[in-house]
Amino acid sequence: MTTSFSRGVGLVSARVAHFDQPLPLRSGSVLPAYDLVYETYGRLNADASNAILVCHALSGHHHVAGHTDPDNIDKTLGWWDNIVGPGRPLDTERFFIVGVNNLGGCHGSTGPKSINLATGKPWGSDFPMVAVVDWVHAQARLADHLGIRQWAAVMGGSLGGMQAMRWAITFPERVRHAIVIAAAPNLTAENIAFNDVARQAILTDPDFHGGHYYAHGSHPWRGLRLARMLGHITYLAEDQMAEKFGRKRRPEAGSYGFDVEFEIESYLHYQGDKFAGYFDANTYLLMTRALDYFDPARVAGGDLAAALAVARAKFLVVAFSSDWRFSPERSREIVNALVHNGQDVAYAEIESEHGHDSFLMDDPHYHAVVDAYMKRIAT
Amino acid sequence: MTTSFSRGVGLVSARVAHFDQPLPLRSGSVLPAYDLVYETYGRLNADASNAILVCHALSGHHHVAGHTDPDNIDKTLGWWDNIVGPGRPLDTERFFIVGVNNLGGCHGSTGPKSINLATGKPWGSDFPMVAVVDWVHAQARLADHLGIRQWAAVMGGSLGGMQAMRWAITFPERVRHAIVIAAAPNLTAENIAFNDVARQAILTDPDFHGGHYYAHGSHPWRGLRLARMLGHITYLAEDQMAEKFGRKRRPEAGSYGFDVEFEIESYLHYQGDKFAGYFDANTYLLMTRALDYFDPARVAGGDLAAALAVARAKFLVVAFSSDWRFSPERSREIVNALVHNGQDVAYAEIESEHGHDSFLMDDPHYHAVVDAYMKRIAT
Repeated sequence: MTTSFSRGVGLVSARVAHFDQPLPLRSGSVLPAYDLVYETYGRLNADASNAILVCHALSGHHHVAGHTDPDNIDKTLGWWDNIVGPGRPLDTERFFIVGVNNLGGCHGSTGPKSINLATGKPWGSDFPMVAVVDWVHAQARLADHLGIRQWAAVMGGSLGGMQAMRWAITFPERVRHAIVIAAAPNLTAENIAFNDVARQAILTDPDFHGGHYYAHGSHPWRGLRLARMLGHITYLAEDQMAEKFGRKRRPEAGSYGFDVEFEIESYLHYQGDKFAGYFDANTYLLMTRALDYFDPARVAGGDLAAALAVARAKFLVVAFSSDWRFSPERSREIVNALVHNGQDVAYAEIESEHGHDSFLMDDPHYHAVVDAYMKRIAT
Repeated sequence: MTTSFSRGVGLVSARVAHFDQPLPLRSGSVLPAYDLVYETYGRLNADASNAILVCHALSGHHHVAGHTDPDNIDKTLGWWDNIVGPGRPLDTERFFIVGVNNLGGCHGSTGPKSINLATGKPWGSDFPMVAVVDWVHAQARLADHLGIRQWAAVMGGSLGGMQAMRWAITFPERVRHAIVIAAAPNLTAENIAFNDVARQAILTDPDFHGGHYYAHGSHPWRGLRLARMLGHITYLAEDQMAEKFGRKRRPEAGSYGFDVEFEIESYLHYQGDKFAGYFDANTYLLMTRALDYFDPARVAGGDLAAALAVARAKFLVVAFSSDWRFSPERSREIVNALVHNGQDVAYAEIESEHGHDSFLMDDPHYHAVVDAYMKRIAT
């Protein structure tokens, strides 16, 4: 179950599916046509009963596993490569795995960077607000396109786990298993508050130009950098930061100024700079807003059990002890709602020091739990 | 012990003390001359044995108690008015209370907004970095100026509590009691990380102009606003935010856009806008950096007990259960170090829902603890 290149899915490449049928969105807008970029690993079996949809989180994309450049394997590995491959928990000898970049994204699917055919210019901030349920509808059309009537499993971590939950509610007959990792039934006020600061950093950056920065040849990198730095603080656990960085000084420290003095500053700047160099600010806005709005219990007057009652899927819910963004307590709300309904749910609370990012880590206990659950899934 | 205007200290006004003797700073720089603005409440007794120094936190100042405008009492009350006055825990019938704006501040004491006599222009980012120990040295000269050889107590919350600790170490003979509230022996990596994001928001604001924005007639309000919004998240407790704001929508919500949708967003924007309207960005940078650097145990190889051993003061340490910025665990490090040394320390851990801001609140249990302690102080 450990990561080794020899056992990964190897060289992969993305495909694009084009959809001409307009997509009505939660906001009331309609997306006239769109592309979804996706990757697949393993082989779809004859009755298309072995397909797993892996949904990505805030900054993720369709490139889940394998590498895209044989000369640069390390740097082009998928974001969840450690869990996908022959003999790994998402065993490509048994399953056909699908990764897709969500609408509004910046990795190939239609999003703010794409050309709006109505204007011939990038959508920018005119790209409609997308909700988790919109992604699920778009993913359902991709499933149709691939000949998948029912997913063996829909799964994901964080915002990806919310998509799995939403799938089980919106298309009960199309999901046999929903695997919800490091997620929550909705965002707390504190979660929204952090997203708000991140968005305000972008929206008030003079280079944002009301979201039409492409035309100005600029990009609100300052705001996006701040957003990512702040995000990183919430992805890590406090104890982990204390152990890894503590109060360690940089070799160049001693300026008694505002240059980098502490290791933790250097780390955050590196992460912020890197992210701001490749991610799209409008996508960041859209993804965080989708998080804010996600609240499947809302239509049921806040009753999560009532909202989940329609689901036919079996659930695996996984939470991590040191995750303070979406704490185990929030996962237990989901579990309790399912238990209340008499629905089939397995729950694992994993001891982990890596905070919210734990769901991406190659932790033996965590992967063993997922592996054991996946082995129970009939194909 | 409850707050009522009739029992407050009434109308107050600030005074300014000018110091011509150069002040050597921790950074190696020397401040050639400086002003300190201060207020006092109560009367200094004949042998000057009843004086209490109240040290302020990140965004505080010298105006601790009373009001400055009889026509606008509510809006001009001092930041800690609820604890100062006749019959209140800091009883002005017994004590002579001193509040002072620290060097580098923006409320009247010499700081980045002040004119640098060497250039005839505002100091801006040329204002030297100030450390907690520098404030203590400057405050000691104010004590001399006021004829106070020894403080009955030095006290404060948060960064103010750090000053009390530093006083007890730097001037053991000049402090009889150190009252350290909602503080910590130093900042964690996570604390520094939040400060770093706040500073980067200011430093990368195009209106910052390298800290010389006064000359440009501008102010990095965007960055300062973000810094304050982020700060506010860390001052509040998560449960408190959940209860007060939760997922409540604004009346104008429903835009499916990036305007304010949730109450928590409205609250943060209000706090950020208000603060950015009156506080100075360079001061914010200096104060957060002083927090980062504060670490009295560092010269003792990280041994806090060794660093505190020189203190002659008796200590009261107070922490709040819901404070996650400086958690009770951090206060207990101070208490344990003092206990290890056989020093005199009282410790109170107050149940409170108000997070780090609890130290400013009029909580009956908290104020009773401080009141009881103050009554033990001989004058």
